Amino acid sequence: MQQVGIGFLGAGIVGSALLKRLLEEAEAISAKTGLDLTVRRVAVRSLDKSRDVAIPDTIITDEPMAVVNDPDVQIVVEVMGGLEPAGDLVLSALRAGKAVITANKELMAARGRELIGAAEESGVSLLFEAAVGGGIPIIRPLSESLAGERITSIMGIVNGTTNFILTKMVEDGADFSEALAEAQGLGYAEADPAADVGGGDAAAKAAILASLAFGVWVAGDRVYREGIEALDVRDIGFAADLGYVPKLLAIAEDSEEGVAVRVHPALVPSDHPLAAVRGATNAIFIEGPAIGQLLFTGPGAGGAPTATAVLGDVINAARELAAGTQVTPRIRFNPGRIREFGDVSTKWYLRLEVADQPGVLAAIASTFGAFGVSIKSVWQEGRGDAATLLLITHEACERDLATAADAIRVLEDVKEIGAVLRVQSDEP
Amino acid sequence: MQQVGIGFLGAGIVGSALLKRLLEEAEAISAKTGLDLTVRRVAVRSLDKSRDVAIPDTIITDEPMAVVNDPDVQIVVEVMGGLEPAGDLVLSALRAGKAVITANKELMAARGRELIGAAEESGVSLLFEAAVGGGIPIIRPLSESLAGERITSIMGIVNGTTNFILTKMVEDGADFSEALAEAQGLGYAEADPAADVGGGDAAAKAAILASLAFGVWVAGDRVYREGIEALDVRDIGFAADLGYVPKLLAIAEDSEEGVAVRVHPALVPSDHPLAAVRGATNAIFIEGPAIGQLLFTGPGAGGAPTATAVLGDVINAARELAAGTQVTPRIRFNPGRIREFGDVSTKWYLRLEVADQPGVLAAIASTFGAFGVSIKSVWQEGRGDAATLLLITHEACERDLATAADAIRVLEDVKEIGAVLRVQSDEP
Repeated sequence: MQQVGIGFLGAGIVGSALLKRLLEEAEAISAKTGLDLTVRRVAVRSLDKSRDVAIPDTIITDEPMAVVNDPDVQIVVEVMGGLEPAGDLVLSALRAGKAVITANKELMAARGRELIGAAEESGVSLLFEAAVGGGIPIIRPLSESLAGERITSIMGIVNGTTNFILTKMVEDGADFSEALAEAQGLGYAEADPAADVGGGDAAAKAAILASLAFGVWVAGDRVYREGIEALDVRDIGFAADLGYVPKLLAIAEDSEEGVAVRVHPALVPSDHPLAAVRGATNAIFIEGPAIGQLLFTGPGAGGAPTATAVLGDVINAARELAAGTQVTPRIRFNPGRIREFGDVSTKWYLRLEVADQPGVLAAIASTFGAFGVSIKSVWQEGRGDAATLLLITHEACERDLATAADAIRVLEDVKEIGAVLRVQSDEP
Repeated sequence: MQQVGIGFLGAGIVGSALLKRLLEEAEAISAKTGLDLTVRRVAVRSLDKSRDVAIPDTIITDEPMAVVNDPDVQIVVEVMGGLEPAGDLVLSALRAGKAVITANKELMAARGRELIGAAEESGVSLLFEAAVGGGIPIIRPLSESLAGERITSIMGIVNGTTNFILTKMVEDGADFSEALAEAQGLGYAEADPAADVGGGDAAAKAAILASLAFGVWVAGDRVYREGIEALDVRDIGFAADLGYVPKLLAIAEDSEEGVAVRVHPALVPSDHPLAAVRGATNAIFIEGPAIGQLLFTGPGAGGAPTATAVLGDVINAARELAAGTQVTPRIRFNPGRIREFGDVSTKWYLRLEVADQPGVLAAIASTFGAFGVSIKSVWQEGRGDAATLLLITHEACERDLATAADAIRVLEDVKEIGAVLRVQSDEP
């Protein structure tokens, strides 16, 4: 039986879950795969920290380069997270001719092209199924099964923390800070939730998916992002009355004008398949001219499912090692254009606090019209001083909507624009 | 650029769709993959038949062995269907050292183990993504991404024709023969619909999924199958009143008692994710202890989506050829036990036509009880001579239910058992 040595960089939630399986289920894994996967070395930040899994003293180290340099390690599993030192460690491992498996979306979104290039130069695998969609197989289906499809769009829910928070806000009427506190209490959100709730985590995943799907490199910082922090529970109530549910969407589209990738909250119709995706579940639509629509749904986070994704990559890298060659990397990036975000169009929901004067709606509608924004429907809530107008527009591009909103904001009877939300009414 | 020669066995709906793309989109495919995929030879049944795609005279033949023996063909695409001559042609191609891509579920379910063994002996790839789920990536995610998961169950809708027919019966109140005729008119059902409506097609797919998921070879003829031909539109109406929708389900389970694989109509709750799967769409749940639940949804049939699945396999086989080695086949079958179907448990829906006499329900309930079948709920429709009893039972195994039904059938006031349907109330 082919023996393959595995080294770990990091032993946090995902790392511990995977270590436990490699150490405790080695027999079942070899029965299924014909491979003897042996953990040779595990680098951790603190040697004293207590963990779910007992790491033998002979293999634990607090020196990550000891993993990279270990001649008995053929596959390096990077589950430490963050840009540094993870990035340079991965690069060193690839240059040392080791296959690398990483779950690090932030790193892949920032330095993916460089790292994929380094893997290609060394003729080794760099696999990162766990970087997007947790336990959902999405990277491999996208880059292998769908290699022959011209993918036109990807849309979905790729951050479990924010989806958990939004589900709480919708179903329990909790406001953002209450829902966030509950998510933190349950371990769904980290002490510093900025990357999740601000959309950064989803933006990194969207960048990776777009790059693979369209074959055009999209760095994470080229993705427009808007988080859910400002979402007002009042608007969630109004949206529900109008038949919508808020979701944090990652959307990547390829068209003749170029590639557009963005992450922002959006209202989706209550009968849309994504509206039914609750809690920490992720769901990703892939669309193309031949394939029509595919939908992948599953656990978007969590140690156990993510460990399955990493383990799948480890097994596949080990199979290639056993075959004596590397078939991956298989990712080619061609030149392509990234669209100006201002040109991207969507429908809009706006909440305006206005004085209930005759003519106020006419003034608003004509101001929108002057900037090319056409109103689809209007509802008024309350009367007199405290009237609230809810508007849904037809499609309008980001730039036009922003300009129109600026002009509306200074109208005499408009007290404030209480909310501006995008409306995603079509499947993807 | 690496040149790879492709040969076709068959140019029907899927074959033509793929040929069209290989012939017309060669440039786009090479830009994306770095491979020059050249169609070298195409074997068809009739040279004169008109097709969607113009096959050059220089490469068309009606002699399939000319494809297998062509030294310029490195990858053979089998899209002729049926057991023979497809099976022996695939075997010859594998033995001749050619990679084979097949969309043939019937063949893989019948001779998969033999063919996978032959591929392994020759060190070539045998890929069959298109055999299950049409355009949905399922084979590769199952055997590669989820290689490290101990999968416990697979459940889903894997036959588009029957799902189209059932959708028509539910939504339009059509009876089976009307819905079948409409499906045939729209090209969703073949002139001879037996394999689809009788469950054979779904059984072949279930066998393939089970074999890959559990690593235990399950031949197609070991799968219990029951079709939808006998489904009465009256029961669809009653089921709707009770909150259920009929679906033809493929279910594969692995437990300590062994592997159980079956295909039959079942009532699923109206709010179950599978209840919302309409028309020719397929949807497949995969469940395991670490991964929880995954759901894959997409087009289960059709030339264009299926051609994408075949093309993905072609590209991956070509990548391996370019790398100078075969990493696949990667499928190992271990010894395993297939459960007796009689031991498999489910909940049940029964419709009994009874005389409305005092004591009839008591007699029925005590008869069920005597055979270990416990009634969960009962509804009576109508009174007097024509009374109809609808029963939902708690879980009971196939054997017990069958014995109980035999005993019920001969009770004095029971005129007939009008329907017996399984109820699938849990997600997978």
